[in-house]
Amino acid sequence: MFNKESGEFMRIRNIKDADLILKSSSYIVSEPNQFKNKWSKLFNNNNPINLEIGMGKGDFIIDMALKNPQINFIGLEKYSSVIVRAVKKLQNLNISNLKLINADALNLKDIFDHEIDTIYLNFSDPWPKKRNAKRRLTSTVFLSIYDDLFKTNKKIMLKTDNIILFASSIVSLSSYGYTITDISLDLWSTDKVYSETEYEHKFRMLGTKINYLQAEK
Amino acid sequence: MFNKESGEFMRIRNIKDADLILKSSSYIVSEPNQFKNKWSKLFNNNNPINLEIGMGKGDFIIDMALKNPQINFIGLEKYSSVIVRAVKKLQNLNISNLKLINADALNLKDIFDHEIDTIYLNFSDPWPKKRNAKRRLTSTVFLSIYDDLFKTNKKIMLKTDNIILFASSIVSLSSYGYTITDISLDLWSTDKVYSETEYEHKFRMLGTKINYLQAEK
Repeated sequence: MFNKESGEFMRIRNIKDADLILKSSSYIVSEPNQFKNKWSKLFNNNNPINLEIGMGKGDFIIDMALKNPQINFIGLEKYSSVIVRAVKKLQNLNISNLKLINADALNLKDIFDHEIDTIYLNFSDPWPKKRNAKRRLTSTVFLSIYDDLFKTNKKIMLKTDNIILFASSIVSLSSYGYTITDISLDLWSTDKVYSETEYEHKFRMLGTKINYLQAEK
Repeated sequence: MFNKESGEFMRIRNIKDADLILKSSSYIVSEPNQFKNKWSKLFNNNNPINLEIGMGKGDFIIDMALKNPQINFIGLEKYSSVIVRAVKKLQNLNISNLKLINADALNLKDIFDHEIDTIYLNFSDPWPKKRNAKRRLTSTVFLSIYDDLFKTNKKIMLKTDNIILFASSIVSLSSYGYTITDISLDLWSTDKVYSETEYEHKFRMLGTKINYLQAEK
């Protein structure tokens, strides 16, 4: 999801009834803080819990949840006018291993307590200007938040077409003690197959190369 | 320098008098093993010693030596028919902080003993096929050789336009305990300025993006 300040257009439209739709959806966890330390109980199993931060309209996390029923997925999205698109896609689907949260990533420390196995960062806002580098989801500000979300082993999977975000993420993760265990500068030329975001699919079709990395700690 | 097996043309021509030219050059250290543990004596100072592995025709290392007189530079090149090109360029220059070695990188452990500050790897053979991955100059085979070349702090600076070599180098270095401290997927779009290789200059002029990283341990 891009915003004006980072040089991209706002893709967020006002959807008047967004809040009503969110409230009536069984996928949305409207008071996520209440489930801190209790997410496994919510899912009613001890399967891994993977979190996408900035899930946007949900194509990636919905596809992942459908393809991997033995893993629980949680999508976090800041903008209600965006997450409502995902909720609408889910209206006729019954996916028990998927929950969505409408909240800011800065609040994650109040939502999870050493419960997450993998974090996905897909096409996050690149915040290309240096003065905004702290806002990138791989800055040390966020990496220190993630420390308290992960169980013991930490695993971050990141995709982006922005080479500034990609480069700064490699340095930030590496300097923070993560090992880069997998990487590609042209994901779709490899034999790795991952679920796509809406944005990714659109730009891949236009020939944009997708950068991918996996970091572990 | 590329070779047939890695899918590139051989750029090495037979130069009949190469060996004679090398023997008569004061830049060439013809028996480098004799200077193991004694390179500072050869340079007659205690300045840092930086090594380029695969110096090719020498543009990078010659330019670096001219621009940084307080650092000693050593260029290593396997092919006599290639290194002779650098020697010819040096014929009318008197650069006291530059030496060249015509040897294979696998022999480096017999040439240096904890004497090197920085290693440069510029447009190394990418060996793109998986079965040849060990031959890449950032494979663990070579990283373990480099361990015994470096003084205490280890620093590798790498440039390449090959995304397979670049990606595998990041994973290999990171997994080996190096921290990626600087990186760019489009070096010449940044404000970093480095000496160029012949190959780099040619392909940059054609619009090729140069990948760059600095790794430290």
